Amino acid sequence: MVAAGTGRRQFTITFQQPSDCGADKIFDISSLSCVRCGPNQISSKSGTTCICQTGFKVLSSNGATVTCQQCPADAKQAVTKDGYGCIRCPGGLNQDGTCQCPAGSVLVEKDLHGNLLEQAVCEVCSPAEPAFSVPDATGSRCQRCQDSFINTSLSCTCGQGNILVGGLCFPPNNLPTSVVTTVSFAQSLLVQSIWFSRHLHSSAAACLVFSNLTACQALGNMCVMNMHSVSGIGNDACGLYNTIYRATAALGSAQAISYWRSNLPWLFYGDQPGLASRVLRTDALPARFSFKGASKNTNINFIAAVYNARGDFIKWESAGGGSLQLCPDTAVRIKAAYTFGTAYQQSCVLSVSKILTDFPEPLFYDIFMDFTLSSGERKLLAVPVRNLNQLFNGQLVNQGSNMNNWYLTRRILLVDTLTGRENRLEAQPKFIRIAASIRISFQLVPDTQKGEVYPPLITVSYSDIAVNNPDTQTVPVSFAVEYEMDQKEAQIKTDIALGVLGGVSVLYSLLKTASWKRRIASPIIDLETILKFLLFYAGDLANVFFVITVGTGLYWLIFYKAQQFVSVLLPLPSQEEQFVTYVGCAFALKAVQFLHKLIHQLSVDIFFIDWERPRGKIMEVAGSTKSIPTPVSIWRTYFVANEWNEIQTTRRINPAFQVAAVLFFLEIVGFSSLALRDPSSALKRDAEAYVPQWSLILRYGVATAVWLIIGLLQILFFTVFHERFVEDKIRQFVDLCSISNISVWLLSHRCFGYYIHGRSVHGHADTNMEEMNVNLKREAENLCGQRGLLPNTDTQTFQISITNRLRQQYDRILDPLTRRNGPSRLLDATASPFEQNTKAYHTMNRFLSSVIDHAHKEMDYIVKDKLLFERVIGMEFIEPMDKSLFYNDESHSFSDVLYYGNEATLLIFDMLFFCVVDLGSQNFVLAAVLTYLQQLLFKLLRNAIGRRNLATKTLVDERFLM
Amino acid sequence: MVAAGTGRRQFTITFQQPSDCGADKIFDISSLSCVRCGPNQISSKSGTTCICQTGFKVLSSNGATVTCQQCPADAKQAVTKDGYGCIRCPGGLNQDGTCQCPAGSVLVEKDLHGNLLEQAVCEVCSPAEPAFSVPDATGSRCQRCQDSFINTSLSCTCGQGNILVGGLCFPPNNLPTSVVTTVSFAQSLLVQSIWFSRHLHSSAAACLVFSNLTACQALGNMCVMNMHSVSGIGNDACGLYNTIYRATAALGSAQAISYWRSNLPWLFYGDQPGLASRVLRTDALPARFSFKGASKNTNINFIAAVYNARGDFIKWESAGGGSLQLCPDTAVRIKAAYTFGTAYQQSCVLSVSKILTDFPEPLFYDIFMDFTLSSGERKLLAVPVRNLNQLFNGQLVNQGSNMNNWYLTRRILLVDTLTGRENRLEAQPKFIRIAASIRISFQLVPDTQKGEVYPPLITVSYSDIAVNNPDTQTVPVSFAVEYEMDQKEAQIKTDIALGVLGGVSVLYSLLKTASWKRRIASPIIDLETILKFLLFYAGDLANVFFVITVGTGLYWLIFYKAQQFVSVLLPLPSQEEQFVTYVGCAFALKAVQFLHKLIHQLSVDIFFIDWERPRGKIMEVAGSTKSIPTPVSIWRTYFVANEWNEIQTTRRINPAFQVAAVLFFLEIVGFSSLALRDPSSALKRDAEAYVPQWSLILRYGVATAVWLIIGLLQILFFTVFHERFVEDKIRQFVDLCSISNISVWLLSHRCFGYYIHGRSVHGHADTNMEEMNVNLKREAENLCGQRGLLPNTDTQTFQISITNRLRQQYDRILDPLTRRNGPSRLLDATASPFEQNTKAYHTMNRFLSSVIDHAHKEMDYIVKDKLLFERVIGMEFIEPMDKSLFYNDESHSFSDVLYYGNEATLLIFDMLFFCVVDLGSQNFVLAAVLTYLQQLLFKLLRNAIGRRNLATKTLVDERFLM
Repeated sequence: MVAAGTGRRQFTITFQQPSDCGADKIFDISSLSCVRCGPNQISSKSGTTCICQTGFKVLSSNGATVTCQQCPADAKQAVTKDGYGCIRCPGGLNQDGTCQCPAGSVLVEKDLHGNLLEQAVCEVCSPAEPAFSVPDATGSRCQRCQDSFINTSLSCTCGQGNILVGGLCFPPNNLPTSVVTTVSFAQSLLVQSIWFSRHLHSSAAACLVFSNLTACQALGNMCVMNMHSVSGIGNDACGLYNTIYRATAALGSAQAISYWRSNLPWLFYGDQPGLASRVLRTDALPARFSFKGASKNTNINFIAAVYNARGDFIKWESAGGGSLQLCPDTAVRIKAAYTFGTAYQQSCVLSVSKILTDFPEPLFYDIFMDFTLSSGERKLLAVPVRNLNQLFNGQLVNQGSNMNNWYLTRRILLVDTLTGRENRLEAQPKFIRIAASIRISFQLVPDTQKGEVYPPLITVSYSDIAVNNPDTQTVPVSFAVEYEMDQKEAQIKTDIALGVLGGVSVLYSLLKTASWKRRIASPIIDLETILKFLLFYAGDLANVFFVITVGTGLYWLIFYKAQQFVSVLLPLPSQEEQFVTYVGCAFALKAVQFLHKLIHQLSVDIFFIDWERPRGKIMEVAGSTKSIPTPVSIWRTYFVANEWNEIQTTRRINPAFQVAAVLFFLEIVGFSSLALRDPSSALKRDAEAYVPQWSLILRYGVATAVWLIIGLLQILFFTVFHERFVEDKIRQFVDLCSISNISVWLLSHRCFGYYIHGRSVHGHADTNMEEMNVNLKREAENLCGQRGLLPNTDTQTFQISITNRLRQQYDRILDPLTRRNGPSRLLDATASPFEQNTKAYHTMNRFLSSVIDHAHKEMDYIVKDKLLFERVIGMEFIEPMDKSLFYNDESHSFSDVLYYGNEATLLIFDMLFFCVVDLGSQNFVLAAVLTYLQQLLFKLLRNAIGRRNLATKTLVDERFLM
Repeated sequence: MVAAGTGRRQFTITFQQPSDCGADKIFDISSLSCVRCGPNQISSKSGTTCICQTGFKVLSSNGATVTCQQCPADAKQAVTKDGYGCIRCPGGLNQDGTCQCPAGSVLVEKDLHGNLLEQAVCEVCSPAEPAFSVPDATGSRCQRCQDSFINTSLSCTCGQGNILVGGLCFPPNNLPTSVVTTVSFAQSLLVQSIWFSRHLHSSAAACLVFSNLTACQALGNMCVMNMHSVSGIGNDACGLYNTIYRATAALGSAQAISYWRSNLPWLFYGDQPGLASRVLRTDALPARFSFKGASKNTNINFIAAVYNARGDFIKWESAGGGSLQLCPDTAVRIKAAYTFGTAYQQSCVLSVSKILTDFPEPLFYDIFMDFTLSSGERKLLAVPVRNLNQLFNGQLVNQGSNMNNWYLTRRILLVDTLTGRENRLEAQPKFIRIAASIRISFQLVPDTQKGEVYPPLITVSYSDIAVNNPDTQTVPVSFAVEYEMDQKEAQIKTDIALGVLGGVSVLYSLLKTASWKRRIASPIIDLETILKFLLFYAGDLANVFFVITVGTGLYWLIFYKAQQFVSVLLPLPSQEEQFVTYVGCAFALKAVQFLHKLIHQLSVDIFFIDWERPRGKIMEVAGSTKSIPTPVSIWRTYFVANEWNEIQTTRRINPAFQVAAVLFFLEIVGFSSLALRDPSSALKRDAEAYVPQWSLILRYGVATAVWLIIGLLQILFFTVFHERFVEDKIRQFVDLCSISNISVWLLSHRCFGYYIHGRSVHGHADTNMEEMNVNLKREAENLCGQRGLLPNTDTQTFQISITNRLRQQYDRILDPLTRRNGPSRLLDATASPFEQNTKAYHTMNRFLSSVIDHAHKEMDYIVKDKLLFERVIGMEFIEPMDKSLFYNDESHSFSDVLYYGNEATLLIFDMLFFCVVDLGSQNFVLAAVLTYLQQLLFKLLRNAIGRRNLATKTLVDERFLM
C-alpha cells in the first residue's frame, strides 16, 4: 500500500515510543528515538533517563548524563540511597543494591553534616511513649506513628484485643468483625472488589470510632457503589452505613434535615411508604419559572458537591458545564439542558476504552438545586434520586411506576471503574458500571398560574459492562430533561367535548339522512339508508374530530408558547398517542366523506335544455317551394357543456398555491420552529443551538393554523377581489347559459336538484356576431326583459324538488340509453347508438322545455322561496306531491355538485392529509409534495370521470368536452 | 422572586463553601456547612481540618479532631515541626512557631530513635567535597547539592567567575549574559514574563553547557511561545535557540534530517528562499488515498509528540481524538476531521474563563502524519507549519500568498496562558495567546490517478487576548481541513469551451437575425435589427452558459463522487465564484430570452376564418316571399377562440409536478446529500454525523441533473403516453378547426406566420346534433374527402411566408380598429366600436377566405415543402415576391407562438431560476416555492395578456374567452 522512495524519506522518521526501547536504551525526547545508555547504565522507570545499574554509584552527573563506577567488590559494600556513594552495610543488601535494615529500624548513611559514614548503621525507632516513632516510608528516619495506634493502644503497636484493619488500629466496637467485600455486577456476577477489601472495614470503623468525616464519606460512597442496596445482612456497605447511622443517632441531624446524620453523608430518604410522593408532590420549588417578560426565569441551576472515592470533598461544581452529561457536545448544546421548558434529550455511544481513560476513579455527586433568594442568600434544595438499580431486600423497588413504592436516595455516581477491580488497584477492572440513563423530570403544580414546579426528580439507571475487549466494546448512554404536568383534566375535557359534539353530530346526520330520504323520494328505511346514515355520520364525526384536534393543537400552541408565567407544559411524547389517534380518525372519516361526495358528484344527472327554435324554413333551392326548417346549431350546447366540464374542479382557492404557501411559511419563514419542545417562540434558530424534539401536537397545531389561515385568506382574496374584479367562473357560467339560450337541468338526487334558467331574453342566440353584439349591448343598456324564470325577476338559479311522476318520465326518456349498457335486446338492435342518442336528446329537450314552460299540466311546478329554517338545516319541509317545487336560489348552490361548492371539505381533507403525512414522517416537505400529488390525482380523476358522466348524461359527444 | 415557606425549608440548606468560613471555622464536608474549630485551633490551608494555632502543640488526635495545648511560655520554647511536641530552640523562632536555624544549617529535634531532644540543635551542612551537602527543602536534613554546582565549582557554592542563574551554576560560556525576557503580545504590548525570567537563561545554559535535553526542549518551547520570531538580536528565545543550534553543529542531525539538531527540538525548516515550495510540492505522501472499493483509504492519522512547557515529553497523542480542535463536539463529529476528502469546518466562541481553567499550562505539539508501511513498520512524516504570526526581522513573512516567501516551522501550541503571567506563576495572566485558526490543507498531485497527495500544511494563526474580565470575554476559534487541487487546467478548458461556443452562437444569432429580417420583410439594418440581434444572441449565449455550467456541475458530481482512487478534488468555495457568475449569466440571459419570447407571443396577429356560408334564405313570415339569409352562428368561432385561449399555456410537462418531483428527489429521497463536500455518495446521512459544507457546484450539478431528468421523463411520458392515449391538446385543436369549419390565420412576424386549414369537408358545420354526428361518423369511416388544403392531402398546418402586398391589405382592413386606440378623429366618430368591429370582422373573413380560395390573383400563393436545410436552420431561402408561400408543416410548428412550442426555453428558464435561488439561499425548498410562484405568475400574465391580444386581433368579444 505504501511505497518507500528515497527523496521522500527526507522528513520521515520511524515511530518509536518509550516502551519500545528495552532495558538498556532510553527514549531520546529530542530525536524521538531510542538511544543506548552509557556503560553500566540502565534506563529509569520513566524510560527517558539513564541511571546506574545495581551496584554502581554515580561518579559524575551534569543533570543529563551520568558516569557510573562500580562499588568495591565486597559483600557488605552497597550504593548509598542517593546513588552517589558506596558504603559498607551493617546487614544484608536490598534488591536495588542499597543496605537493608530490619523492620522497625532506619538506615543511617551520613552524619548530621552530610558526610558519608564509613559504615552505615541500622537504628531502632522507639515505638513507646514518648517517642511513638516508626520508620518513615523511605526507611531513613524515625517519625511519629499513626494517631489511631497511639489513641487505641498508647503505643505504635496495635496491641492485644484491638483490631488492626486497613493500616489503622481500632478498639473493639459494635461493627461486625467480617464485612462483605464482594460486589454484585449485572445482577448476579460477584466480584471480589479490592477497593472494598482494603477500605470498607477500616472506613466504617474510622467513621464510627473516630468520627473521621472522610472515612464516613468513603463508606457512604461504597454504599453508592453498591447501588444503595439494602438487605437483611448488616455487613455490606449500606448495612454498615445504616448501622453507624443508627449508632450515631445521638449526634443529631445535619442542617436540620432528619435523614441527614451529622458526620455521615446523606444517602437515603426514609423508608416510610409513600414518602416519595410526599417529597416530590407536597411543596413547590421556591423559584417561579416564567418564559417571557421582565421576570423571565428559565435558568435551572444544579450544583453538586463532588467527592472522590476516598471521601475527600473535591469542590462544588455547577452542573451547567455538563458534569452530568457523559456525551460530549458543544458548550451551547450542553448548556441547553438547563433551560426550563426545553425538553432535552442527548444520547450517544461511548467506547469502553475511552471511559477507562477518562474516568480512572469514580466521582460522587450530591446534587442540589441552587436558588438565590430575594435577600441575596443562596439556598440549595436537595434533589432526590430514583435509582432504578436499587435493591431493597432483593427487589428492584424503584422500577415500578407507583411512586408510593419508591425509595428515594441522594448521591449518584456517573462511572465506576474502581469497584470492578479484583486483585490490584492498577489492574483493568473486570466490570465497569455506568449511569447509562439519567433523566431529570419536573412536574408542574396543578392549576398554577405562576410557574410553580414541584422539586425535580433524577432517575438514574446504571449499566454494568463486563470488560473483555475495551477497544471494541461500546455502551449507549443518554441524558434527558423532561417537563410534565398532569394531563388528566385536559383529557377529561377533550372526552367531554368529543361526547357532546359526537352526540350532536348523530342528530345532524339523522337530519341529513332524513333530508336525503325525502330527496330521493323513498319512504322505507332499508340497508341503503343505514349505510347512507353511516356515511353522513362519518363526515360529521370527521368534523368533530377535526374541531377537537385543531382546538387542542391551537390550545397547546398558544398557551404553551405564549405564556409568560409557566402555567401549562406540553404532554410527553407518550401522552400524545391519543391525540395522534384522533387525528388519524379525523383523516380517515374525512377521507370517507370526501370519497362519498366525489362519487356522488360523479353520478349526478344533468341535461342542457336548448331553447333555440328554428328561425324558419330555408328554401332548399332558390325559388323552389320545398323548404326545411333551419337546423339549430349544436355548438352553443357544446360551448356550455365544455364550460361546465371546465368548472368541475374549479375551487375557491388555488390548491397548489396553498401547498406552496404553507410550505413557505413552515419551512422558509420558520413557523415549524414553533413546534419544538421548548418555550421559545423564535422562528429562526441558531444553527449551532440545541434542537429539541418535535412535539407532534405542536406540529399539528402550527400546520393546521398556517393551513387554515392561508386557506381563509385565499378564499377571502378569491371571493372579495378575484371573483369581483377578475373572473367568477360560476357567475360566468350562469351568464353564459343566458346568452347561449340554454338551461341546465341538474338532478343531484332522484327527486332533487338544481335548475339554471338560461332562456335568452332575445329569443335567439344562435346567430352571427352583429346580432350577438347587439343583444349584449341591449341587455347592458336594460332595453330588454329580465333573465329570470318568472317574469320581471332576475332569479336564474333554483333548487328543484320534483315530483315522482316527473322523475319517472325523465327516466323513461333515458331508458333506451341506460338499457344499452345492459344486455342487448332484439327489439332495439335496429337503432344505432347514434340515432338513439340523438332521438333521446331531442325528446328530452322537448320534454324538459315543455315542463319549464308549464306545458304539462300533470307535471307542473311552482316557484317559491325557501324558508330560512329550511336553508339552515338543508332540508325541504314540503314534499312535492302534485306539483314540483322550484326554490329561488340566489347563492348558486348548484355548485354543490362541483368542487367549488365543497371547498370546506376539500380544504380540510387536504389539510388532514398534509398533517397525517407529517405526523408520520415529521417532514413538512414530504407532506407538501404528497398533498400536491394527492390533489393532482383526485383532480385528474374527478375531471376524467366527471367528463365521461357529463357526456353520458347530456348526450354531448365526449370529444367536444376539451 | 423567591419566597421562603416553612414546609419548603425541609430539604433546603444554605450554600457555603470552604472559602466562606473564615480563619476559625472549617468547612464540614459532611454537613456542607461551616463549623467552628475547637479552642486554640485555626483552620488549615485547605479549610477542611482544624489545626493548632501557632505556639500550641497537638495534645491528642484521632485523625479527625485534635486537642491543643500551649507550649511553656518561654522565649526559646517552640513547637516541633511535626506539631506534637514543644522544644527549646537554639536560636530564634519562625513565623509558624518552629525553631529557626541559620542558612546552610539544618534543625535537629529528635535523636536517631525518634526521641525528642531536650533542646533542638542547628547543625551546619558541609558544602565541600566529599559531603557536597546543603539543607533540604524542609531544612531538617543535609543532602547532596545540585549537580551543576559540583560540576562547575566542585563545591555547593557557585564560586567566583561562574554564573549562577535560575538556581543552577554554570561555567562561563558563549551565551549572552543578559537575555530578553519580555514577550510582545498583540504585536506591540510588552509583558515582562515571569516564566521567561525564571527559565530562559538557565534553560539555554543547561542546554548548551550540560546538553540537558529537557532544558533544550524548554528553550525551544519558549521560542514557540515567542511565535518562532527571529530577529537580529541573539538574546531572545529563538535567538538563543539559534545560537545553540549553530554552536552544536558538531553534534550532527537527529534522524538524518538536516534541520533537526541532536539534543535540540526541531523548530525551523531552513531559511533558504523557496524552501517552502520544495518541501510542500516535491514529493507525494507515501500513502495513496482512495474513496471506494477494496483498497478504500480515507484515514488521515495525525500523531503528535506532546511536551509541556518545562520540556518534558508527555506522550505520543493521536490527533483523531480532537487534540487540535479547541471547540467541543461529539466524538463522531470530531473524528470526521480526519477523513480524507471531507471538507471540515468547525468554529465556535470560547469563554476566556473556561480557557484559563482548562489550559493551566501550555502543551506543545510536534505533529507527524502516521503511515503503516506494507512491512508493518510505522513511519512518521513531519508536517510543516505555517505560523501566520511569525516575525522574521520584524516582517510577518508568512502572511503573503507567495509560497516561496514562507518560512515553515514545526512545533505549535494551542493555548498559552503561561507567558503572559507577570509577577507570580500563580497570578492571572495579563495576556493569553490562543491558536484561533488552525487550517490543515492537502493538495492533490496534478494529474494523479492514484490519489497521490503532497504533504499537508498546517496554517496556524494566533490571537492575543488581554485578560481583563475573563467571565465575559470570549474568543472565536476555528479549525478546518481543506482539500484542493490545481484548478487552472479546468479553468482553461472552460474558457476555451466558452470561447468556441460563444463564437458559434454569434453566427447562429446572425442567422436568426437574418431570418427575422426576411420574415418581417425589411431589408435595412437599423437599430431595431441590432437590438434584435442582441436579443437572439442573449438567448444563444444563455444556452452556451447553460451547457457549460451543467457540464461543469455534472463533471464534478460524477468525477468527484464516483472516483475510486482520488484523482480530482472539488474547487474551494473561493474558486467557485466564477462558476456562480456563469450561472448568473446563464439565468440573466435566459430571462432576457424568455421575456423576449413572451412579449413576442403576446403580440402575434391571429384571425379565425369562418368558412361557413348561409345555408339559404329564411322566409321571415311563413308564406311571405320576403326572405333574409340565414345567419351564420358565431358560436363555432367562440368555441375555437376559447380553445385557442386555453392552449396558450399548455405545456409538454406539468410544471408544478416538475417542481414537486424535483423537491421530492432532492429533499426527501436525499439527492441533496450528494452536494456535500465529502466523497460519500450516500443519500441518507446519520443525524449525528458531521455535515460538511455545501459545494455550490455540486448543488447545481445535482439540481440540474434531477431537474433535467425529471423534465425529460415528463416530456417522454406526455409525448409517448399522454398525448397518444389520453389527450393531445394541439392535435385536438387542429381537429376542432376542421370540425368547426374554421381556419386559423396566424402571423407571428409581419410577413411570416402559420395557417391551420380548418375548412370542413362536409361543407357545413353550423348544424344540429344529428348532422354533426353523421359528419363525424362519415369522416371516421372515410366516406368523405380529406381535410388538407390541397385536394387529396391531409396537411392542415402550414408555415406561411406572405407577400408584402398581402400584409398591407391585411393591415388596411384592421386599420380602423388600430386607429381607434390613437387620437380620435372626426371622420370615424359616427361608427360605434361595435359596428367597426363587426365590419372589420366580416371584411377580414371575406378577404382571407378569398385569399385561401385563390380568388385574388395578385395575392396568390403556392404550397410547397420546406427544404431540410431550411427546417434545420429555421430560415426560408425564397423571398415571397409575387406569390405567398405555404410550407407544409406536419409538426404543428404554430405551437411556437404558444408555451407548448417553447418547452425547452421554459424548462431551462425554470431550472435556472430554481438553481439561482438555491445558490443564493442554499435552500431547495425556498427555490421550489419561488419557482412555482414564478411559473404561476408568468402563466397568469401570459394568459391574461394573451387573452386580451386574442380578443383584439380576432375581434371576438373577450367575455367569451372563458
